[in-house]
Amino acid sequence: MDQDQDQLPFDVFARNCPSRDTLGHVTGRWGALTLGALREDTLRFNELRRRVEGVSEKMLSQTLQALERDGLVHREAQPVNPPRVDYGLTPLGREVAERLLGLISLLENRMPDVLAARDAYDVERQP
Amino acid sequence: MDQDQDQLPFDVFARNCPSRDTLGHVTGRWGALTLGALREDTLRFNELRRRVEGVSEKMLSQTLQALERDGLVHREAQPVNPPRVDYGLTPLGREVAERLLGLISLLENRMPDVLAARDAYDVERQP
Repeated sequence: MDQDQDQLPFDVFARNCPSRDTLGHVTGRWGALTLGALREDTLRFNELRRRVEGVSEKMLSQTLQALERDGLVHREAQPVNPPRVDYGLTPLGREVAERLLGLISLLENRMPDVLAARDAYDVERQP
Repeated sequence: MDQDQDQLPFDVFARNCPSRDTLGHVTGRWGALTLGALREDTLRFNELRRRVEGVSEKMLSQTLQALERDGLVHREAQPVNPPRVDYGLTPLGREVAERLLGLISLLENRMPDVLAARDAYDVERQP
């Protein structure tokens, strides 16, 4: 894996590699949740806001813009009245979302272990 | 998948679920790179700093602390002189790192598509 990475032109471990920005867009808290929420179906802005609990309008808007610019999300203005915009995943966005959701499922399933580790850590450090 | 998630006690899409913090620790820019860097071998603090280009001492220290508290990284003080501390992945940390590296490889390999999408996006929006 390391060897393969060295031979690739893009390397997230390198300070100035543009792949780092994309990793940031995809794995930032709101980026990951937005891609995950779009996995099943296209959604409108307000539907997305409800699904990704706690995201502000401004943060969701910035998140969608970064994901659209990276070619992971597409934005489709529907020719209806009143106007409506749907957000969905591109084929690449779908691949990314599937890997992310694999990671999310793993974490959700293993949270009992994580919470036990936190308790042990905190107890060890009590005065 | 949605149905399975609803039946689980932990759900990253829910505002107050503790799994969201862990998702943040794991996928924050420095968290993802730190877990990725530890995949091959244990490393000392300064070795990690060199591998994760651009991370500050303070950010790396905070990142390691959060990952250790979540039970993903363990910290081992070696009984040598001068004292030495090695950082490595726990079994759960290794599972998480493998999924993360799958995502990272996908992004590195598809960066030509991402860059082409960015160019198209920027051209469309030029005055």
